[in-house]
Parts: sequence; C-alpha cells; structure tokens
Amino acid sequence: MRLDALPTLAAAALLAAAPLSALADPLPSWTDEGAQARIVAFVESVTEEGGAGYVAPERRIAVFDNDGTLWSEQPVYFQFLYALDAVKAKAEADPSILTSPALKAAAAGDMQALMETGMDGLLEVVEVSHAGVSIEDFQADVEDWLTHATHPTSGLTYAQMTYAPMVELLGYLHDNGFATWIVSGGGVDFIRAVGEAAYGIPPWQVVGSRGNSAWDPETKTVVKTGGVVLIDDKEGKPVGIAQQIGVRPILAFGNSDGDYQMLDYVTSGEGPSLGLLVHHTDAEREFAYDREGHIGVLDKGLEDAEGRGWVIVDMKAEWSRVWSGE
Amino acid sequence: MRLDALPTLAAAALLAAAPLSALADPLPSWTDEGAQARIVAFVESVTEEGGAGYVAPERRIAVFDNDGTLWSEQPVYFQFLYALDAVKAKAEADPSILTSPALKAAAAGDMQALMETGMDGLLEVVEVSHAGVSIEDFQADVEDWLTHATHPTSGLTYAQMTYAPMVELLGYLHDNGFATWIVSGGGVDFIRAVGEAAYGIPPWQVVGSRGNSAWDPETKTVVKTGGVVLIDDKEGKPVGIAQQIGVRPILAFGNSDGDYQMLDYVTSGEGPSLGLLVHHTDAEREFAYDREGHIGVLDKGLEDAEGRGWVIVDMKAEWSRVWSGE
Repeated sequence: MRLDALPTLAAAALLAAAPLSALADPLPSWTDEGAQARIVAFVESVTEEGGAGYVAPERRIAVFDNDGTLWSEQPVYFQFLYALDAVKAKAEADPSILTSPALKAAAAGDMQALMETGMDGLLEVVEVSHAGVSIEDFQADVEDWLTHATHPTSGLTYAQMTYAPMVELLGYLHDNGFATWIVSGGGVDFIRAVGEAAYGIPPWQVVGSRGNSAWDPETKTVVKTGGVVLIDDKEGKPVGIAQQIGVRPILAFGNSDGDYQMLDYVTSGEGPSLGLLVHHTDAEREFAYDREGHIGVLDKGLEDAEGRGWVIVDMKAEWSRVWSGE
Repeated sequence: MRLDALPTLAAAALLAAAPLSALADPLPSWTDEGAQARIVAFVESVTEEGGAGYVAPERRIAVFDNDGTLWSEQPVYFQFLYALDAVKAKAEADPSILTSPALKAAAAGDMQALMETGMDGLLEVVEVSHAGVSIEDFQADVEDWLTHATHPTSGLTYAQMTYAPMVELLGYLHDNGFATWIVSGGGVDFIRAVGEAAYGIPPWQVVGSRGNSAWDPETKTVVKTGGVVLIDDKEGKPVGIAQQIGVRPILAFGNSDGDYQMLDYVTSGEGPSLGLLVHHTDAEREFAYDREGHIGVLDKGLEDAEGRGWVIVDMKAEWSRVWSGE
C-alpha cells in the first residue's frame, strides 16, 4: 500500500490511529513495478518474530556495490574523475610531476588522450593523485571534492549523484535492524570517504580494493606501501566479505557482472536471501548501458537473473527519482 | 562514587530520586585502585556533549586484545588447547592422520613432547585441527568446545575463563555508545567463534591473523587456501585495525608487548585516548607472569607505561573477581 494513493480523509483517519512511521512510505522514490514489493516482502519476512523466515538482527547484513549501484559510474568511475582533478591541482602547484603522457593528459583534462594510455595510464593517474598524503588528509580532500567538484555531463556535484531510491533503501534497511555494507571494487580509502559523507555508512562497513600497508613507528600511522592485496571485484567480493564481515550476508545489491559472485554467494546460503541488480535503462535521466561497454557490463547477470530468482531493477520504470541532488 | 560504599538509607533515598541505571555500579568487579576511576573518567569525558573531550559515538571505538586480556592464556593459548582436543577427536575416528611426532604427541595429550617439536609442530597441530571443514562447521565445533571442554588446571570450561571485570567493561563501553572490537594474534575464525559466543562481539568486529582464501564457485563458499596474509600481532595490529576499522580507535586494552604497537597507535591520535594493560600479578587466583616466559611477555610495556600515560591494571589488587564462571 502506498500512502499517496489514499484519499486524504482516509489517510487522516489512519494517521490518527497509528504512528506515522508505520504508514509513511519508506521508499517513496520507488514505483510499484515489482522490485519495491519484493524488497518490502523480504524485509517484513525476515523481521517477523516467530515467522518461518525470521532472521535475528545480528545476521541482517546487506551488501551493496557502490559504482553504478549507489551512485553513477559514467562516463568513468568517479574515483578516476577525482584522480584527474587531484592531478590537475597538484600539477598547478608543481608542473614537474607531469612525467608521462597519461599524467599530462590528466592535467589537461584530455580524457581521450588519457584513455589511449590504457589501464596502466589510468592506474598511474590514480597512484599519483593519492600519493604523498596521509589517509586522513586524502579522505578530507575527497570529502571536499564530493561537494564542490561537478560532474562533466550532469553539472551536479558528485554527492548529488547518489541515487535517491538507494539512499532511501539504505535507511529503510537500517530502520529494520540491518547493517548496510558497501562492497566495492574501488579503492577502500576513497570509498570510505564517500561512504561516510554520502550515505552515513561508517568506514568499517566498507570493503574495497586495497594494497599493502605497514606500521610506521616514527609517524605513528599506518602507511600505504604499494602493490595490490585484494581486488574487490568479481570473485574478490565474496573473499572480501568473508575476510571482513565473517558471515554470509542475506541481501546483495549490485549492477554489473562484477557483482555476480557476490550475489551468487549471498543467495546460496541456507536461510532467506535476496539478490538485486540495478539495470541502467534510462538514457534520458541517467545513462543506458548493459551488455557492452567499458564500465559496468551486465550480461551474465541479465542472463541468469530469472533462473536465480534475482530481481532486476529497471531504473527507467521503477525509480520515480534518480539522483538525490536533483 | 561506588554504590556499595553508601549507607543503605542514603542509597535508598538516591534510588527513589534517580533511575537505577544512573546509580548501579557498572564495574562491580573492579576495586577502587585507580584503573576503574581512570576508565570512568575517560568514558564520562568523551560522552559529555559540549565538553572539551567529547567524541561522537561513531568514533568511540575500543580495541581489545583477547588472550590474556579478555580471557586467560596459560599454560598456552587456548586455541592450541582446542587444536589438541580436535586432533585427538579426529585421531580417534582415523588414527592414520597421526603422521608426525607433533600430531602423535597432540593426540596423546603429551604437552611436553609437543613443545619439543617447536613452533613448526604447534602450527602443524593447529593446521590439522582446522583442516577439511568449512568455516561454519569449524566455528560450531569451537562453540561447542568452549562450553564443554575443561581447562587442564582450573577445571573450568573455557567460556568460564573469560575475565568478569573485562566482560563488565565491554558492557559498560557498549552502553556508552562505544563499538568494542577484538584485535587478536589468534586465528580470525577461532576468535570470531569465541567473540560471539563468549562476549557477544559480532564476527565483523574481530580482527585476527589470517591466511589466504578464495571463492569456490562449486560449493558457493569462501575456502581457506593456506599461507599467512596477516599476523595480527605487534606491528600487525595497527595494520589490521587500519585495514578493517579504517579509523584510529580511542581506547586500547592489552596485556603484553604484542599489544605495544596497538597502544602506541591508539594513544598517538589527536583527540582523547586511553591505553591500558592487564598485569598478571595473581598467582593464586589466576597466573603471575610478565617480563619472561613463552606467552604474554610484558616488558617494554611495563617500562614505558608511566611515560606514555598508559594504565597498568594490577589484577591482584584491582579485580575483586577474576573469571566469569567461578
């Protein structure tokens, strides 16, 4: 039932008889196209004490991919856009850091030239953008960037490009005793800054890709020492979840085949579970892409969803709003 | 102020005027020897809204070593005692697994012979005790062992050998908005089973030593694949904390030089912090050991505590009770 569908008088009568929280639609940016009902039915089932599907609060764990699931990821992962901005700012202070074609393209904002340097070029830009600062300073810079820098096509700040329906869903799950986690292929320090500032998810509820680190007894800090320890994508997602959470979650939400193993893991447990995938179908309000492309490819997930009972969320049909900040 | 020090009538008058929770001593197993007052003053300071030392709830993170801090660790880490019992049980079902002197000594309960096989022998016993079962089955077995197997000298179950004053402290911190974490050199899967069963600390609030693991698409589980990724002891503790928690905690409690770097890290932040060390001084009720030995050596910590402002908790003088299950 949706409150906004009720005649005013009936609503007023109901409001007088029940607390507002029991009536207010917790997911107002979701239309009635199916996913909303599946989510609400699942949450009601796992929270019904004595019910067959009851799950104790300490096992109500929901995991969310970030890029393309909680906020947009086009034309390229926002962490790359942050890196571009950061390299540009660093180069203004010290142009001598621009020692490669990739770094020069980044500082010039020439995406085309940067893309031509391939993955090695992109990683070099990310590395330089993150280098030489403590994790705390890096995260403060990311938080500032989130609310001041603007996206190349939408003109919104990145903080405004979180998805309103997903922010509502995080709150709805939280209100129902769930712990909500981000499990992202992005660098963990970047995603932790975003998670706390944009969704109120604390740093320890973020699993991300990470490199080596070591204790530095001089500065009394833990410093990055390079390399890659965990690529928290595809088969790395269940590994990151097991390492950091230690129990199998019961709800997983992704948007690409990079999330396939996470959904596979979460929906293969013994108890109740729910797997969902955002399908980017809205070229007008956001972006439309799925089986092909360089970012967020969703192919095997679309193929297998029906057989696995996974819910495909059709953005165009199911979200009455897209971005939080519009 | 301690309620039990008040005359009965005054106490009754106070009880009539204030809620019980504001009066009941939250740390009844602690005597008034100094540590208790330091802890309470710290907690009151960080929770006083508007106060100079206020810390928001989402940054009230307390980290605890486990062995020797939350429960006993003599004559040897309890994880080894579990491993001995597990190898014994496995060998009864299949004696052919006893392929080495270390495994034979373990199955015979011959600690002396086992110790003579050195660290390699001990690790082999641990490895065999953990092998060939899923993490879930392993943890269920540990939980069963906790409440059924008994300790060689105390005769108590291992679950009964958690420290009553520390269990109280975990509850007191939790009631004051803290998240309490275990940061242990023990194997993470073992400590997670103990943490949830013995202290109610959820699996994701446990940082421990760990090996490699991988996603197995056949069984839909994450399986251990051997090796060592993180030894969560000494300089590994700040690294494990940074990886998993992502922010610097404000309270650290340990008992040995294996916790030195953790205390160093936690008490070197910019805001308020508190570092504490259990000093095992009670040969009568528990065990007495510090600067020498094979387990839980506390030497540098004792040396530096005063200069660093760390609180040394004299078990004999400061704990009116020791074990929870006595």
